[in-house]
Amino acid sequence: MDLRDLNPFHGALPLMDAGWLLAEAPEHPTHVGVLMLFELPPEADGTPSEGTAWIDETIAGALQHHELRSPFDLKLTRPHGLLGTYSWEQDHDPDLLWHVRHLALPRPGRIRELLSLVSRLHTPTLDRHRPMWEAHLIEGLADGRVALYWRASHALMDGVAAMRQLLTAFSPDPDERDMVPPWAADPNAAPPRSKLRGRNDRSINPSPTGLVGSAITAATSNFRLTSTVSQQMLRGISHRSEVPYPAPDTIFNTRLTASRRFVAQSYAMDRFRHTAKAADATINDVVLSVCGGALRRYLDQRGELPDESLTALVPVSVRPADGPDDGNALSATLTTLATDVEDPAIRLERVKASMDKAKARMKTMTRSQLATYGTLLFGPVLAAQVTGTAGSIPPMFNVIISNVPGPDEPLYWNGARLDGMYPMSLLFDGYALNITQTSYAGSFEFGITADRMAVPRMQRLIDHLEDSLTALEEAYGVA
Amino acid sequence: MDLRDLNPFHGALPLMDAGWLLAEAPEHPTHVGVLMLFELPPEADGTPSEGTAWIDETIAGALQHHELRSPFDLKLTRPHGLLGTYSWEQDHDPDLLWHVRHLALPRPGRIRELLSLVSRLHTPTLDRHRPMWEAHLIEGLADGRVALYWRASHALMDGVAAMRQLLTAFSPDPDERDMVPPWAADPNAAPPRSKLRGRNDRSINPSPTGLVGSAITAATSNFRLTSTVSQQMLRGISHRSEVPYPAPDTIFNTRLTASRRFVAQSYAMDRFRHTAKAADATINDVVLSVCGGALRRYLDQRGELPDESLTALVPVSVRPADGPDDGNALSATLTTLATDVEDPAIRLERVKASMDKAKARMKTMTRSQLATYGTLLFGPVLAAQVTGTAGSIPPMFNVIISNVPGPDEPLYWNGARLDGMYPMSLLFDGYALNITQTSYAGSFEFGITADRMAVPRMQRLIDHLEDSLTALEEAYGVA
Repeated sequence: MDLRDLNPFHGALPLMDAGWLLAEAPEHPTHVGVLMLFELPPEADGTPSEGTAWIDETIAGALQHHELRSPFDLKLTRPHGLLGTYSWEQDHDPDLLWHVRHLALPRPGRIRELLSLVSRLHTPTLDRHRPMWEAHLIEGLADGRVALYWRASHALMDGVAAMRQLLTAFSPDPDERDMVPPWAADPNAAPPRSKLRGRNDRSINPSPTGLVGSAITAATSNFRLTSTVSQQMLRGISHRSEVPYPAPDTIFNTRLTASRRFVAQSYAMDRFRHTAKAADATINDVVLSVCGGALRRYLDQRGELPDESLTALVPVSVRPADGPDDGNALSATLTTLATDVEDPAIRLERVKASMDKAKARMKTMTRSQLATYGTLLFGPVLAAQVTGTAGSIPPMFNVIISNVPGPDEPLYWNGARLDGMYPMSLLFDGYALNITQTSYAGSFEFGITADRMAVPRMQRLIDHLEDSLTALEEAYGVA
Repeated sequence: MDLRDLNPFHGALPLMDAGWLLAEAPEHPTHVGVLMLFELPPEADGTPSEGTAWIDETIAGALQHHELRSPFDLKLTRPHGLLGTYSWEQDHDPDLLWHVRHLALPRPGRIRELLSLVSRLHTPTLDRHRPMWEAHLIEGLADGRVALYWRASHALMDGVAAMRQLLTAFSPDPDERDMVPPWAADPNAAPPRSKLRGRNDRSINPSPTGLVGSAITAATSNFRLTSTVSQQMLRGISHRSEVPYPAPDTIFNTRLTASRRFVAQSYAMDRFRHTAKAADATINDVVLSVCGGALRRYLDQRGELPDESLTALVPVSVRPADGPDDGNALSATLTTLATDVEDPAIRLERVKASMDKAKARMKTMTRSQLATYGTLLFGPVLAAQVTGTAGSIPPMFNVIISNVPGPDEPLYWNGARLDGMYPMSLLFDGYALNITQTSYAGSFEFGITADRMAVPRMQRLIDHLEDSLTALEEAYGVA
């Protein structure tokens, strides 16, 4: 069953896909992305030139697949529809040379040059006159690895869906070759589920009133659920004393510019797991706490640390395990990051208590209620993008910290080992920083997306994450 | 004297700078650019690695110059002002690492890969929250040359101004080193003229009614000048029988998408000069005629050649030789391209007759009238960008063919010889093709900017230009 076929007021359609299109502007593009690093297969000798040979073959192979897999084959019938008028149609003659691109790094070909390049690639909005995704294969890393930067409109799929879509094309078998690229239809496979259920024909606006209308209707029809939150958030003002966690003004909560910066880092999953075990917390509690510590140090060094703790919005996927791999299925909750305390153990305790409370609250909700709750948290943020009021009202939270679960086992693409994959997110006007992690094959992969002007010297955030994790490990004696 | 200090209704301010900002959208960004190719200085051995060393030194030098030359130091006080509310302010702390960028080509590093890269770089709109220009130094050409792709908002400067701005930083002396980059203030130079006249403080909207109001006021106050053209163009309909040259519907006159493609080619100036002499025409007549022949063949091969001839809009600079090097100073005229005739000599005769008539008409105009005339031609085009009516009304012309005069003598940048420079233009909604040439050191440098979707297989246009020129040379016995 496609969740989006349900009545949006009672079903799991918390964020209309169309809301992402409506909210988009040069200052806040609404695509998500991922940066993947591949180790070359054994037949390559690991030099950059061998890497480019692998790229050449992979691109040549990719360009042979003219039939795209849904939803990669969908384009908007009207790129700039008014609210409620967007719909998809199939692109029968995709311009593959536009979607699949070959790039190279300038010397010295470090991760630094790679991050600089993908920061730029992540900046502009996608062309709405074609299927809204791009794949960039990047050669020239000095260590011989090759990179894939990939992005797609959030209207096509959310981060979880994007991850699943890409990874289904890879294989746990390092010897598999001639693989169909992630965006292409597999000529040997059964017709994909999404086509069977006629996704290509449906409008992406099941509700004529769209996102904002849905949020408002939900606010009234599910009043008992979240009345305090919803009332205050829909008003968008003077909510500080009433919502669970007030959000102070920070340098992160500013109008966006049209430039992005992206940094990334991998950590051994065991470091988080051992700390979580020692602290009787979840891994996610540890992640949030480590982020809190890093943000505290970053703001403190800039003389911008507020007295009150920062609050994070934590998206929660409400996609069932057997749900469709496209579209949007998100809810969210708020948590303190305890940036007002210096002691890392106390910070973790506070974050854990906050998240325990949120989870207890969410456990009492049906999936429909969870979806509505997410809409209430996110809806006013999206609405403010459309109306242009973002940045002139107090922030509802300070930063988005998101977790996208990934596979446990290593995956291969035409024999090249997927060595790391870093989620690249989108920003909302008034919310200039996003930290997203994904788990993969024993690692935690952090990707930090920010406005280049609002968050200067972003690389320091990566250093502070390491320091913050180390401090927590030491506090619990697991270093 | 700054022309823009004049009353715009009687002065030479035919296109308000702010009009370019107002008209901008992801589908029609309003920046201009240039692609420059440099041969390495003699001390380099001409290999790609030496080229990158030159780039490294040039970039390192560029990043030392934190004080920018006007207008490169100007940013918008309000990036999204309503009509009439834009103004500049100085950026005292420019983010040079954003403006000056180091890129590389993927193998095999041909011109093809370069054009593919700069087509992408030319596609997105500039960030309005910083000075609206970017310089991209590109290594990795297999022939050892290095490329500079540079772009700036048309609100800062038109194509002629951009060319002058860049070239003043280069030197006719191949031995000069440690040169100040084109965008930087020269610490040893006198204060620049534009600062003396207080450009940084002025609004870019001398007229509160802005572009559209100016066009309309001009249409009434200078009625005797261009009444037929102005009345019809401001109405934007049923003008075919009354304007000098009707424009048929072509595949070029379509709504724009958000993807650009750029191709370029150099020709020996003598080929155009000898043909012009033999035909008793101007070099510009020959250029227009060659373009007409190429467009005829391109459309014919696609089965899209209309019976009526295509009409070109030909911008004319009204910038005095001693005028300021920034801002906009443009007028324009229309001409037939005689695409309805196969014989290249007859085509040239028709183009020459058409241009002679236009020049005779323009000779009777004062500079102020010329400016008004340009506004009348361009104004409705820009107005249609703002109002979104472009593409739904018949085209006023089919293609823009523009000439930007360049220097006669070779120029050098830190010893690297400027080997070629190709103008990259902007497109208007409804007008998906622009051909701009510049003259430089004995060459004619063609740059063709188009919408990637409206003008497929653009490289063929370059081939057709060559064929068209050859046919004309043969017709006049100068091949």
